[in-house]
Amino acid sequence: MRSCSIAVLGATGAVGQVFLRIIEERKFPAKSIKLFASKRSVGKRITVLGQECVVEEPTPEALRGADIAFISVSGEISRQWAPIAVKAGALVIDDSSTFRMDPNVPLVVPEVNADDLRHHQGITAIPNCTTTPLVMALYPIHKVNPIRRIVVDTYQAVSGTGRAAMDELREQSKAQLDGKAYPPRVYPHPIAFNVLPHVDTFLDNGYTKEEWKIVQETRKIMHAPDIAISATTVRVPVFTCHSEAVHVELAHPMSPEEAREVMAAFPGVEVVDDPRQSRYPLALDVAGKDPVYVGRVRRDVSVPNGLAMWLVSDNLRKGAALNAIQIAEEVLKQDLLLTPERR
Amino acid sequence: MRSCSIAVLGATGAVGQVFLRIIEERKFPAKSIKLFASKRSVGKRITVLGQECVVEEPTPEALRGADIAFISVSGEISRQWAPIAVKAGALVIDDSSTFRMDPNVPLVVPEVNADDLRHHQGITAIPNCTTTPLVMALYPIHKVNPIRRIVVDTYQAVSGTGRAAMDELREQSKAQLDGKAYPPRVYPHPIAFNVLPHVDTFLDNGYTKEEWKIVQETRKIMHAPDIAISATTVRVPVFTCHSEAVHVELAHPMSPEEAREVMAAFPGVEVVDDPRQSRYPLALDVAGKDPVYVGRVRRDVSVPNGLAMWLVSDNLRKGAALNAIQIAEEVLKQDLLLTPERR
Repeated sequence: MRSCSIAVLGATGAVGQVFLRIIEERKFPAKSIKLFASKRSVGKRITVLGQECVVEEPTPEALRGADIAFISVSGEISRQWAPIAVKAGALVIDDSSTFRMDPNVPLVVPEVNADDLRHHQGITAIPNCTTTPLVMALYPIHKVNPIRRIVVDTYQAVSGTGRAAMDELREQSKAQLDGKAYPPRVYPHPIAFNVLPHVDTFLDNGYTKEEWKIVQETRKIMHAPDIAISATTVRVPVFTCHSEAVHVELAHPMSPEEAREVMAAFPGVEVVDDPRQSRYPLALDVAGKDPVYVGRVRRDVSVPNGLAMWLVSDNLRKGAALNAIQIAEEVLKQDLLLTPERR
Repeated sequence: MRSCSIAVLGATGAVGQVFLRIIEERKFPAKSIKLFASKRSVGKRITVLGQECVVEEPTPEALRGADIAFISVSGEISRQWAPIAVKAGALVIDDSSTFRMDPNVPLVVPEVNADDLRHHQGITAIPNCTTTPLVMALYPIHKVNPIRRIVVDTYQAVSGTGRAAMDELREQSKAQLDGKAYPPRVYPHPIAFNVLPHVDTFLDNGYTKEEWKIVQETRKIMHAPDIAISATTVRVPVFTCHSEAVHVELAHPMSPEEAREVMAAFPGVEVVDDPRQSRYPLALDVAGKDPVYVGRVRRDVSVPNGLAMWLVSDNLRKGAALNAIQIAEEVLKQDLLLTPERR
């Protein structure tokens, strides 16, 4: 694999930190690394792959020379900086929802649709951290038995919101256990010892944007515009890992055994499914791990060709940083960096 | 309403304690109260409705004279004591799953099927604490627009397991926040900052008993044996109140507005549904309250006649103690106490 220069925007955030860890774990072939973040973090020194980097504020000049720019910041800042990074010559891998549904932007989970990267025009996007595990588990089934409908309800960790939310869960939990008040700041309501059926903002149809992302992104990634999808996304007092209760309806019958087999054979999916021994995927166990874990696979007894299952995935890893790095690895493998004529 | 003598088995448990509080709140017409519990609690003095009661171990003799026996203990102990209480002359209102599906035992949510009480043969049962809120919210819809299918995923509080589980969540959370270990005792895995897709034991079909209770009990209470139901029941780190993400398919179209109207008009159901103002039912808000709260009512976009919604209910109140007391009130109103010839 050829080496490349990378820029990381949002390097000090929850995803950014995991990103730098995974870069090291995978020995990503980065010949140079530049780290960018907001004013607050400027000047911070971080050692990555043996290089000491000083965190800077991004400027068009500072981005020049980067082959790949990873962006994990707010949608607003992505909208501003992604085009600047492309102009500076970098292929952008963006973690925000800003560009995901743009028909010119490949939205990629490499195990599922790496080929879509070939059509990039400078910007590629990674899916929402709830969509990625869902398509990882369901695509191998869909390939052999088309999925008609998905109902999914989520149990999402606070790290999906960012570092401030992790602090809030920690401090609010302590306060509540001590009988003290700790008013919510990041969320509209307390998250400690509570569950919030509210992730991202609400749309006119009563769904949240998060729920709608699952609908649209799943269809785009799986090239399956006709799958019917309904989701309720819920924040739970868990630090890391999103869990999902999934009910699918297939075109034809499929036994739980066969579903387990095709999922287990798919790269990046692990089946942990021995409920009698209390073995099923758990957020606390999956935190820090790369695969998407699937368990509790059973017939959905309420429809003829139904399956029900339970997924857990580290939202900062496969749900964000790892998927972005896998896209970069694909880009290098497929030789898809921006060439001067593509800029 | 005539007054009666009551016996409470399991008076010192999580449900028993709430039961005694509600008896007082509602000024239940108890002319005498006897409290029973296991050896550990014998001798404890508890004042209820102005009477000081001493907790005893149950005996057939001690039960004599009770008109109504509330039983909230393990299924095994219910199986043992319910028939003894009936023989002693008491109408039993049982909180365990032991008798629920017995065709001779009315399984009752008074707002839905109080008439079923007329057929009792000494034992009546209250539903599982996840089933009760579900039928409370869905029965008013079902009456005007038959429900064909229900998919429900739960977010269940630890108090459903009992006091020891509440202690475990508290102590384990403290320990984890202090970086200390606190091995699970009540649950097979840590519940602090985790979610467990495992409530009650597993059946051969891959569902848990808890999930299967929802299927069977919902059909029995609503007199709707053909409703297709699938559930995933999940324990979350919340002390009190079960939340449920619900997706229903109806015989005919129904707008979210109409669904809200029929639910809001049903006794014991409150609609809290203004998501743009971050108003939806929340476990922390509902704890200690009697109604079942419904919000996030919207079209389920993945089926023609679908609705999705979010329910929250205090599992110790409407999910257990309150529903039992409401049954007792109905029994008195309908004059259904055990008469000598029914014993």
